[in-house]
Amino acid sequence: MESIDRQVSIYMNGSEFGDPQIKEMMTQELRQRLIEAEAEGRPLRVYCGYDVTAPDIHLGHTITMRKLRQFQEFGHEVTFLIGTFTTLIGDPSDRDEARAEALKEDIERNAQTYAEQAFKILDREKTKVRYNYEWLSKLSFADVINMASYFTVQQFLIRDRLRNRYEKNDPIWLRELLYPLAQGYDAVSLQADVQLGATEQLFNLMAARRLQEVFGQKPQICITFPVLVGTDGVHRMSKSRGNYIGIAEPPDEIYGKTMSINDDLIMPYFELVTDVQEEELAEFRRQLENDTVNPMVLKKRLARELVTQFYDEKAATEAEENFARVVQKREVPDEIPEVRTSFKAQQLPTNSALIYQAGFASSSSAAFRLVMQGGVTIDGKKINDNSPAYTDGSIIKVGKRRYFRVVDADKTS
Amino acid sequence: MESIDRQVSIYMNGSEFGDPQIKEMMTQELRQRLIEAEAEGRPLRVYCGYDVTAPDIHLGHTITMRKLRQFQEFGHEVTFLIGTFTTLIGDPSDRDEARAEALKEDIERNAQTYAEQAFKILDREKTKVRYNYEWLSKLSFADVINMASYFTVQQFLIRDRLRNRYEKNDPIWLRELLYPLAQGYDAVSLQADVQLGATEQLFNLMAARRLQEVFGQKPQICITFPVLVGTDGVHRMSKSRGNYIGIAEPPDEIYGKTMSINDDLIMPYFELVTDVQEEELAEFRRQLENDTVNPMVLKKRLARELVTQFYDEKAATEAEENFARVVQKREVPDEIPEVRTSFKAQQLPTNSALIYQAGFASSSSAAFRLVMQGGVTIDGKKINDNSPAYTDGSIIKVGKRRYFRVVDADKTS
Repeated sequence: MESIDRQVSIYMNGSEFGDPQIKEMMTQELRQRLIEAEAEGRPLRVYCGYDVTAPDIHLGHTITMRKLRQFQEFGHEVTFLIGTFTTLIGDPSDRDEARAEALKEDIERNAQTYAEQAFKILDREKTKVRYNYEWLSKLSFADVINMASYFTVQQFLIRDRLRNRYEKNDPIWLRELLYPLAQGYDAVSLQADVQLGATEQLFNLMAARRLQEVFGQKPQICITFPVLVGTDGVHRMSKSRGNYIGIAEPPDEIYGKTMSINDDLIMPYFELVTDVQEEELAEFRRQLENDTVNPMVLKKRLARELVTQFYDEKAATEAEENFARVVQKREVPDEIPEVRTSFKAQQLPTNSALIYQAGFASSSSAAFRLVMQGGVTIDGKKINDNSPAYTDGSIIKVGKRRYFRVVDADKTS
Repeated sequence: MESIDRQVSIYMNGSEFGDPQIKEMMTQELRQRLIEAEAEGRPLRVYCGYDVTAPDIHLGHTITMRKLRQFQEFGHEVTFLIGTFTTLIGDPSDRDEARAEALKEDIERNAQTYAEQAFKILDREKTKVRYNYEWLSKLSFADVINMASYFTVQQFLIRDRLRNRYEKNDPIWLRELLYPLAQGYDAVSLQADVQLGATEQLFNLMAARRLQEVFGQKPQICITFPVLVGTDGVHRMSKSRGNYIGIAEPPDEIYGKTMSINDDLIMPYFELVTDVQEEELAEFRRQLENDTVNPMVLKKRLARELVTQFYDEKAATEAEENFARVVQKREVPDEIPEVRTSFKAQQLPTNSALIYQAGFASSSSAAFRLVMQGGVTIDGKKINDNSPAYTDGSIIKVGKRRYFRVVDADKTS
């Protein structure tokens, strides 16, 4: 029983239902189901479904995938469901048969890479990979009508987003009301005990419960999680928006994209898609709040965590080095002045001294003010004090567009 | 062109759309389609669909069937569509598989008798009989979702009946929104030029137009007709209400049920389901308005028309005779008094004289008043004057429950 309480706590951690009553109900049902399954000597059947609109699994997907892995770690049976059918019907645009066929091939190809990528997170040996085309493509018109007998139009239209659209008289397509049936039938077909999903999908997950009852099954427990905002800081992460970080992208891409996110996203990313422990996260939050850390430092840590997670530490270190180089290369003009200084001195020149030496300030004190006001960047990092922060080869940026390079005066060139 | 204008006038006669603009549009499209088909040297493809919830085709069905026959008479290709699939999905109640199978068998059996009965009205040689199970059972979930992409929930909810239910928060089942797709796909499958139906089905017929366009066809012309009120005078005619007159019922049943309708229904029945010409109908209307006809007389005419239509004149005459006999038998107690009178006299006793003789009035004048006030019925017909209206064996009814039989005094018994 102790193990069960611990499991419940782990599985529900990070969940978000948007409704405390549903959360309470699901928590109780989950606990109950774990007790029953233990008594029956069987694992829970747990799944999450993923549509395949793009070849890449991105960070957004990993929120639930990491949760699936937690179930695996306790010995439960995990199905990684690939929505080959639901993806096929997802695009409402007019399509001729040739294009539909091409789309189907795309989906099948993407589905294959999906499964492969999933094993960056899930345990390959313990994961069932299924495709919902297998059962949904076999349903007939009569089956659909039968399922549609158990839902009212009102149930759909009281949902926030649909109600708003209905009230504004924005078209709500009949097609949209059929998705919950498709997704719900997945749960029936898998005889699921638990389904994971995004908070915004809660209605569909709950609809699946109703269908399971219709088909004589015990309704599944639904656990939902927040949606990950994309690197643009505005929309949910998705391939089509271009605001995503794919888990199979090269380490440099993962690192670079992570470095590009807005500071607001640092903590949500740490919380939702890394293994960094809560104590450390609390410290990060404190530092950010009190402005005692350069957010860039935390972003680098985040980027390292992600690359390490999908590759390894070595790849993370390389990515970090490449990033510094590449970003500099991108920003810095081809020909820039050099300032030579010796690195043998006991005490190196201050940052402002080099700036004055470069002729980018009219006086030493003007150079010092530039540094203290935050107008100076060394190797892509803004500096706030004057203690030497450069090395041989460092690029020092003053204001928006002026650069010089620090060169070791002792080096033979 | 003269023939085309005449056809349009005949086909549209009796139609009711509940919307003059749609009627105007359909009339124009019908005319245009007839011109095109003539130019192409082909007949129009015309159909009407019938669900098979009961083994009997009833008068209500014949409104559109008679119209189909008119198309046949001008050489068009008529399909009598039996809704084997749509009937199967029509019953929303929970059903186990065994019951569903039994229902399917019922439907198939009923469908067979349907086709046979249809030929009481349609030309057997010129009628195609089709069953929509043939194509609708082949549609997949993906097909349904594709069709559902072309309709919005709002289009459904602005329909009067659904809007009212929505506003009252009466459940509107998602299933109900799928019927128009099923019926619409019939038109696609038949590549229909014209579909007939009931006025209340206009939305579904129009939805079919949209689907035909989606599938690259020219949208059909829809022609709709009023619903026939059942013999109860309240609800639409249907087997399940028990207020129907089946066209394959025995002549006595058709005759008797027609005699039982409310006077209000006489004219609608004449107009919608008989061949009686407009001039004569106008005369009937006048007579009813001015109370110059006993409605019973018109009802008998109506009953004769119907039996003749589905059988022949001889059957109609027999039914009339049987009706008089049976009705009397039903109403009259087994043992009733007899009043003997001679039929050889030049002048027979008045009706009131016999009533007084029977002891059913305290005086000749009281008996006379009974007759003149309409309290006396002879052989089921109310009498309003005193000239002898009886024959040997006539049953004379006085008030609500008193009867006597007239017996020829000269007969040897």
